[in-house]
Amino acid sequence: MSKRFNIDTSRKSRLGFDEVIYGASKSVTLLNELLDDYTKKKVNVLITKLEKDKAHFLLNTFKNAFYDEDSQIFILNQIEANDTEHKVGIVSAGSSDIGVANEAFYTLSYMGIGAKIIHDVGVAGLHRLLNSIDVLKTFDVLIVIAGFEGALPTVVGGLLPQPIIAVPTSVGYGTAKNGETALNAMLTSCANGIVVTNIDNGYGAAMGALRILNLKR
Amino acid sequence: MSKRFNIDTSRKSRLGFDEVIYGASKSVTLLNELLDDYTKKKVNVLITKLEKDKAHFLLNTFKNAFYDEDSQIFILNQIEANDTEHKVGIVSAGSSDIGVANEAFYTLSYMGIGAKIIHDVGVAGLHRLLNSIDVLKTFDVLIVIAGFEGALPTVVGGLLPQPIIAVPTSVGYGTAKNGETALNAMLTSCANGIVVTNIDNGYGAAMGALRILNLKR
Amino acid sequence: MSKRFNIDTSRKSRLGFDEVIYGASKSVTLLNELLDDYTKKKVNVLITKLEKDKAHFLLNTFKNAFYDEDSQIFILNQIEANDTEHKVGIVSAGSSDIGVANEAFYTLSYMGIGAKIIHDVGVAGLHRLLNSIDVLKTFDVLIVIAGFEGALPTVVGGLLPQPIIAVPTSVGYGTAKNGETALNAMLTSCANGIVVTNIDNGYGAAMGALRILNLKR
Amino acid sequence: MSKRFNIDTSRKSRLGFDEVIYGASKSVTLLNELLDDYTKKKVNVLITKLEKDKAHFLLNTFKNAFYDEDSQIFILNQIEANDTEHKVGIVSAGSSDIGVANEAFYTLSYMGIGAKIIHDVGVAGLHRLLNSIDVLKTFDVLIVIAGFEGALPTVVGGLLPQPIIAVPTSVGYGTAKNGETALNAMLTSCANGIVVTNIDNGYGAAMGALRILNLKR
Amino acid sequence: MSKRFNIDTSRKSRLGFDEVIYGASKSVTLLNELLDDYTKKKVNVLITKLEKDKAHFLLNTFKNAFYDEDSQIFILNQIEANDTEHKVGIVSAGSSDIGVANEAFYTLSYMGIGAKIIHDVGVAGLHRLLNSIDVLKTFDVLIVIAGFEGALPTVVGGLLPQPIIAVPTSVGYGTAKNGETALNAMLTSCANGIVVTNIDNGYGAAMGALRILNLKR
Amino acid sequence: MSKRFNIDTSRKSRLGFDEVIYGASKSVTLLNELLDDYTKKKVNVLITKLEKDKAHFLLNTFKNAFYDEDSQIFILNQIEANDTEHKVGIVSAGSSDIGVANEAFYTLSYMGIGAKIIHDVGVAGLHRLLNSIDVLKTFDVLIVIAGFEGALPTVVGGLLPQPIIAVPTSVGYGTAKNGETALNAMLTSCANGIVVTNIDNGYGAAMGALRILNLKR
Amino acid sequence: MSKRFNIDTSRKSRLGFDEVIYGASKSVTLLNELLDDYTKKKVNVLITKLEKDKAHFLLNTFKNAFYDEDSQIFILNQIEANDTEHKVGIVSAGSSDIGVANEAFYTLSYMGIGAKIIHDVGVAGLHRLLNSIDVLKTFDVLIVIAGFEGALPTVVGGLLPQPIIAVPTSVGYGTAKNGETALNAMLTSCANGIVVTNIDNGYGAAMGALRILNLKR
Amino acid sequence: MSKRFNIDTSRKSRLGFDEVIYGASKSVTLLNELLDDYTKKKVNVLITKLEKDKAHFLLNTFKNAFYDEDSQIFILNQIEANDTEHKVGIVSAGSSDIGVANEAFYTLSYMGIGAKIIHDVGVAGLHRLLNSIDVLKTFDVLIVIAGFEGALPTVVGGLLPQPIIAVPTSVGYGTAKNGETALNAMLTSCANGIVVTNIDNGYGAAMGALRILNLKR
Repeated sequence: MSKRFNIDTSRKSRLGFDEVIYGASKSVTLLNELLDDYTKKKVNVLITKLEKDKAHFLLNTFKNAFYDEDSQIFILNQIEANDTEHKVGIVSAGSSDIGVANEAFYTLSYMGIGAKIIHDVGVAGLHRLLNSIDVLKTFDVLIVIAGFEGALPTVVGGLLPQPIIAVPTSVGYGTAKNGETALNAMLTSCANGIVVTNIDNGYGAAMGALRILNLKR
Repeated sequence: MSKRFNIDTSRKSRLGFDEVIYGASKSVTLLNELLDDYTKKKVNVLITKLEKDKAHFLLNTFKNAFYDEDSQIFILNQIEANDTEHKVGIVSAGSSDIGVANEAFYTLSYMGIGAKIIHDVGVAGLHRLLNSIDVLKTFDVLIVIAGFEGALPTVVGGLLPQPIIAVPTSVGYGTAKNGETALNAMLTSCANGIVVTNIDNGYGAAMGALRILNLKR
Repeated sequence: MSKRFNIDTSRKSRLGFDEVIYGASKSVTLLNELLDDYTKKKVNVLITKLEKDKAHFLLNTFKNAFYDEDSQIFILNQIEANDTEHKVGIVSAGSSDIGVANEAFYTLSYMGIGAKIIHDVGVAGLHRLLNSIDVLKTFDVLIVIAGFEGALPTVVGGLLPQPIIAVPTSVGYGTAKNGETALNAMLTSCANGIVVTNIDNGYGAAMGALRILNLKR
Repeated sequence: MSKRFNIDTSRKSRLGFDEVIYGASKSVTLLNELLDDYTKKKVNVLITKLEKDKAHFLLNTFKNAFYDEDSQIFILNQIEANDTEHKVGIVSAGSSDIGVANEAFYTLSYMGIGAKIIHDVGVAGLHRLLNSIDVLKTFDVLIVIAGFEGALPTVVGGLLPQPIIAVPTSVGYGTAKNGETALNAMLTSCANGIVVTNIDNGYGAAMGALRILNLKR
Repeated sequence: MSKRFNIDTSRKSRLGFDEVIYGASKSVTLLNELLDDYTKKKVNVLITKLEKDKAHFLLNTFKNAFYDEDSQIFILNQIEANDTEHKVGIVSAGSSDIGVANEAFYTLSYMGIGAKIIHDVGVAGLHRLLNSIDVLKTFDVLIVIAGFEGALPTVVGGLLPQPIIAVPTSVGYGTAKNGETALNAMLTSCANGIVVTNIDNGYGAAMGALRILNLKR
Repeated sequence: MSKRFNIDTSRKSRLGFDEVIYGASKSVTLLNELLDDYTKKKVNVLITKLEKDKAHFLLNTFKNAFYDEDSQIFILNQIEANDTEHKVGIVSAGSSDIGVANEAFYTLSYMGIGAKIIHDVGVAGLHRLLNSIDVLKTFDVLIVIAGFEGALPTVVGGLLPQPIIAVPTSVGYGTAKNGETALNAMLTSCANGIVVTNIDNGYGAAMGALRILNLKR
Repeated sequence: MSKRFNIDTSRKSRLGFDEVIYGASKSVTLLNELLDDYTKKKVNVLITKLEKDKAHFLLNTFKNAFYDEDSQIFILNQIEANDTEHKVGIVSAGSSDIGVANEAFYTLSYMGIGAKIIHDVGVAGLHRLLNSIDVLKTFDVLIVIAGFEGALPTVVGGLLPQPIIAVPTSVGYGTAKNGETALNAMLTSCANGIVVTNIDNGYGAAMGALRILNLKR
Repeated sequence: MSKRFNIDTSRKSRLGFDEVIYGASKSVTLLNELLDDYTKKKVNVLITKLEKDKAHFLLNTFKNAFYDEDSQIFILNQIEANDTEHKVGIVSAGSSDIGVANEAFYTLSYMGIGAKIIHDVGVAGLHRLLNSIDVLKTFDVLIVIAGFEGALPTVVGGLLPQPIIAVPTSVGYGTAKNGETALNAMLTSCANGIVVTNIDNGYGAAMGALRILNLKR
C-alpha cells in the first residue's frame, strides 16, 4: 500500500515555514507513521491539538519530543527561540485561556520568534489592563485571547495602534456557545482593524503574527 | 361579533402598572378599536414598536397622542414625569442605539420615573466612559445599551456596583446577527450580576428598572 | 515563571463583593495555585461550576472547604449568612432544577444574604404555584428557575410585582436545546420587566439580586 | 404545453377532505389556471397564505370567492358550516394572533365544523384564562395559539384533559425568532400530550382537529 | 430540610392521568426519595429517560419495578393493560427507532391502552408500507416514528385518514442534526393535519393519543 | 480603469461547457458591460438568478435575449436543443417548484440536452408518483425537486435505479426554513446514493446531469 | 414477539444493489439478530458506522466478517472486487479524512467496483493536486473528500470534467462545526455541477457513483 | 437637549487614525447633525454602509462629498492618496464582490495608502489566479475577498507568504447563508496564518492592513 500522507515539502521555500500536523483526528498509528517519516528526514515537526493519551503514547517512542498538556502542543525536537527580543505580546482575558495562550507561545517559539504572555487582564477588572498598557506598547504584534463575551480585543483595540489578532476561546458555558459568541463579538467589534482567527486557534494567530513580522524583517 | 381583545384591567392593582400594547403585528383597524376602547374608558395607554405609517394614521384620529419616530413609541395622552430626580441612567454605546434608549426613556417617563440618557460612550474610545463614571454613580439603576459586540455592559459592570440591566440592540451587520451576538455577549459577560432583556427591548429594561425602584419606595 | 493569574483585589471596594473563580475550564494544578494564594492571604473564595472529581481532589488539601455536588459550588471557608431574614425567594419549576437553585442559594449565603428555595412549582400543575403566592409576596427579589419550555417566570411575572430574575436551565432534551429554548422564552416573555441571566447561571442571578438588595440597604 | 399542475382528485375518498392550495409561492398566472380548472369542475377550493395583492387580483375574476385579510385565506365559493355546534375551541394568547386563529376558524368552517375563537387570554394576566375554563371544557378539541414565549398551551395543558393542538405564531421580535422560540417551547412543554404544528399553521391545526373529530363521528 | 419535590396529586382528577417523572437530569439520591414517597403512598409511577446505570441501581431497591433498556422506561409496579384491543398503531421507519417505539408502547400500556408496533416500514422500500395499509386502517390513532429525513409520516398522512402523531427521532448523523431535520420535515409536511411531538418523545405521543382516545370513550 | 471582470475563456476546453454568470448580486451597469463583451466576442451566455426588473432593462438593449420570469434565467441568443431525445427527467413535488424546474430545463436546453418536466407529483398523493414510474424509468438521469419537507427524492430513490440529483427549494414557511429543511432531509435521506445541490439550484443540478451524460457519450 | 426488523428483499431487483445496515444506533443484540437472519439466508451484508466495541463483539460470532477501524465498515463475507479497473478516483484533502475515504472504498469494493484513493492533496499545497491531474483524468467518477473549509471539490471541479461527488467530513474544530462548514462550502461552490452528500457519508458517495456507473454499463 | 453623539476626538493621537461613522442604522437627521459638526471643525470624515437614498440626500447639502454606490462609502472631502506606491493588493474572487473591494480601496485611499484591485480571480478558473501570482508578490499586504464557498484565501495562503486578511462577502444564496459559509470557511482554512474580518467588512480589512503597514513605517 502506498503512503497514506503526502508531505508538502516545498512549503518552507514558498511561504517561509514548514508544514504542521493537525493531531486531533488522526489515529496514533497514522501519527506514528508520520513522525517516523519526519525523523528519517531529520526534520522537526509541530503537532497541534494532540490529545493527552495519544501524546503520551508517542512520547514513549520519540524521546526527544516536547509536549505541553495545557495547549496540547507536541514538538519533535523543540528548538530554542533564537530571537531573544519579545516581539509578540500574548494577552489573555482569564487564567482559563492559558491553553490557547500557550499554543500561540510555543508555535512562535518553534518558529524562532520571542513572545511574552500577559495573563488574566479581563475587562471586568479594567485597571489590570490599564496597568499593562505601557508594557503592551512595546510589542510589534498583539495576540489577544478571550472566551465568554470576548470583549478584551475591543478594549485593547481602542487603546493601542498595533496589529491585533484576536483569538476567541471556547471557555464559558450556555450562551458562550463553545466560543461562537466570543468569535462573533470579535468579528463585529466596534474597534477598528481587529482581525480574527478560528476559536481556540492560538496556532493560527501565531502564524498570522509570523506573516506580519516577516514583512518587517 | 365579540371584541377581538381582552384588556387586563386588574394589572395595575396586581403589579403596579397598566397593560401596554405591542404594536408591530397588529393591523391599524385593530389598533383603532383598542385605542377607542381606551379613550372611552378615559385611561392612557402606551404602544411599543409601532411602525411610522401606522402611527401617522392613528395620530390623525387621536390628536393628543405622542409619537417618537426613533423609538416607535406611541402614547395616548403623554403625562409629565412627576419624578424630577433622575433615578435611572440610560447609557448607550453608540449614537445608532438612540431608538432603544428613547424607548426606555419614554416608557419610564410614562410610568412617572425620571431618567437621563448618556449617549455614545462605547468602549472603543474608553475615556468617554471613564469620564462619565461620576455621573453614572448617581443613578439608582443603570440601563446599558449596545449593539455590535455588546461589550459596554461588561465594562460598566466591572466599574460600578448598581443594578445593571443590559439591552442588546440589532445595530450592526454580518456576525452581529441582528443583535444575537450582543445578546449572547451580555448573557455570558464575565462581569457579575448583569441581567439582560430581549434584543431592542428598551421597554422591557424600563419595566425591569420600575420593578427595582418600586422595591426602594 | 510569573504567576499565571492576576487577582482583582480591588473588586470589593469598587463593587461591594469579591472576585469569584470559574472552575470548569481550569486544571486542578491551576486551581491549587489559586487556592494556595487565597489561603495565604487569609481570604475566602467561591468557585463555581467545579466538577466533582476536581472538587474531591481539592477537598483533600483544603480541609475546611465546602462542596455541594448538585450545584458544583466550592467555597473556601464557608461563612454563615448573618442575614437571618429571607430576602430572596428562589422558585424552581421542577426538582431537576435543584442544582441551579442551590448555586443561587449558596452564592447568596456566601455573600451574607438569607434566601429560601420553593421547590417544584411548575406551571403544568398550576395550583402548586397559586398556593405559594402569599409566601412569594414576602420576598424582596424573586429568582425564578425553569428548564424545558421555561414558562414559569412569565406566569410569576403576571402575578407578582417584585424584581424577577429569570434563570433558564439546561434541563430537557430535543427542542429544549440545552436551555436555549427556555432562555429565549424568558427573554421574549409577554410578562413585563422580567430580566434574564445565562443558562444555568444561578450564580449570576444571585449576584444580580445582590446588586438590587444593596440599593435598598 | 401540458398542465403545470396535477390535482389529487382522489384525496377526498382516501382521507375525507379535498386538496388545498398553498398560495404564497405561486404566481397569479398559475393560480388563475388552477382556479379556472376548479371552476370548470364545479368544485370548491381553499387557498392558504395568499398575499393581499394577489387575492384582490383574483377576486376580480372569481366574484363569488371569499378572502380574509388577517388570515390570508381565500375560498372559492364559501359554504356555510352545517355543523352548528362549536366542537373546536380556538384559544389565542394575544390579539396579534388573530390571523392564525382565523386561518384555523375558516378552514374548519370550510370543512363543515363549527368552532369558536376565545381571544387574548395570555398567561401574563392569568385570571383571563382561569375565567374561561368552564367554556373551554365544553369543546371536543382545543387549538391553542401563541407567539412570543408560547407559554399558553403549557398552562392550558395542565388544566384541561382534551386533545390540545398547539400552534406557535411568528408574533414577537428578537429572541422570538419568527416563532421558533414559541415552537420549541410548545414541543418541549412540561405539560403532557400536547401536539404541535408548524409556525403560523392555523390551517394544519384545523386539519389535525378534523382528523380527530372524524374519529368520534 | 423540607422535601425537594412537590407531587401534583390532583393531576388524575383534573386530566385523567397521573404525574410522570423525567429521569434524565435527576440524581439517584433524588429519584430514590421520590420512589420512596410513591411506595409509601402505594401508588404506581412511570419514569422516562432513565439511564441504564441509574435504573439498575434503583432496581436493587425497588424489586417489583420494570425497566426496558431500549426505551429507558422505568415503571414502579407495571400493570397489565386492561384494554386488549389494539387501539393505537405505532409505526417505525427503521429498526433503530425501536427505543422511541417502545417508549410509546410502554406508556400506553401503563395508561391501560392496547397498542401494536409495526416495525421498520421506511419509505426507501415503499412496498413494506403499502403492504401494511390494511392493518394500519384498523387503528384509532397512529403514532408514526422516523429519524434521518423523517419522510414516513408524510407518506402515511397521504394514505390514511386517522389522527397521526409524528415523532422524530435522533437517529442519523451529520445533517440529521440529532433529530432536528426529521422534526422540521414533519412540521412542514405537505400532508395535511399531521401533528408533531418533541424529538424522541415517544412518551408525549402516547399521552397525545390518550387525550384523543379519552374523547371517544 | 481596467475591466472589472475576468472571463474564464478556457473553461469550455477544460470542462466542456462555458462560463455562466450569476446575476443576483451584480448591478445592471456591470451586467451591461459583461453582455457587451460577450456580444462583441459573438458568444452566447447564460445568466442565472436575474431579477425581473434588471432583466427587462437588459432586454431593451439585447433584443435577441430570452428571459423566463419563473426561473429568472436570461440567455443571450437562446439555441435550440439539438438533442431531441429526453435524456433528463425533471420531477417536481409541487407546482410551486416550477421556477427551479425551469432553471434546470433551460440550462440543459442551453447546453444542448433534451429534458422533460414531470410536474406536481408530491408524496402526499402517492398515486401521482406511482403512475409516473414507467415514464421515469426512461430517463438517463433524474433531477428531483421538492420544497417543504423534501420527501420526494427519498421515495423516488427507493423505487428507481438511475442517478438522482435532488434539489431542495425554498418553497414553504416556518420550519421549512427557506429550504434548509428540505436540503437536510435530502442529504440525510435513507434512500441510497442520492446526491444533492444547493437550495433552489436547478442550474447546478443541470450541470451535474451534464457531467454524468458526458460520461456516457 | 415478531421480528423487530423488516428486510427489503426486493431492493436488488428494483435498484441493483442490496439493503445496507446503519450500525450506529442499533444495540448489539439487535445487530446480532439481523446478522443471524442474513447468515441463515446465506447472503452478505454491509454495516456502516459500526463502533469499534460493537464490531469486536460481533467479530467473535461471525468469524468470516471483515472490519475496518478507520471507516467503521463491517462486512459479512467480504467479496473481492471483480472489477480490476479503477473506475472511481477517491481524492482526500488530508490524511485525517482517511476514514471517510475508506468507507467509500470498501463500499465500492463490496459492490464490485474498483477504486483508488489519492491521499492528502489539499489545496494549501496546490502543487500536490496539480501533480495528480493526469491520474485524476483517468477515472469515470471522482469522489472528493475534505474537512475544514472544504475547498478541494471547488478546485477539482474547475480543472476536471467528470462527475464529481463531494463529501464533507467532520474533521476540524471551532467554525468547522463538525463538517457543516465544509458541507455548505461544497453546496455553494462556484465550480459547476458539483453534487454533494451528507457529512462523513463516504458510503453514500460510493452508492451515488454506483448509480452513475450503472448508467454507463 | 444635549448632543446625541460624542465624537472620539483623541482617536488619532491614540491609534493613528480618526473615528469613522457607521451609516446604516442612523437617520438622515442624525447624520446631518454629525456632518455639520465635522464641517464646523473642518475635519474630514468617512461614513461606511450608507444607503443610496440617504447618501443622495446628504450630497445635496455637503457638495464636496464623495459617494460610491457599489461600496456605499461616503467621504466628506476626499483626499488624494499621497502614497503613490501600491502597498496593498485587493484580490476579489468574483465581479460580484466589487462593492467590498471598493470599500477596502476607498478606506485605504482615505487613510493615505495606495492599493490596487485584482478583479475576479476565483478558484473555479484557477489559471486566472496563477497568472496573477507575480503581481501579487509585490504587495506588502493582501486583502482577499470572496463570497459563496470562500475558497480563494485558502489557495492564496498556500501560495504566498505575506500577511493575508480574508474578507467573506454576502454574495451567494441558499447555503451561502449571507456570507456565513464563506466566513466559517476562511476561519477554518487549512492554509496557515490567514486572519479574517466580519462579513462584507472591506473597511475593517483596510484598517487591519493600516495597522500592519504602520508597523513597517
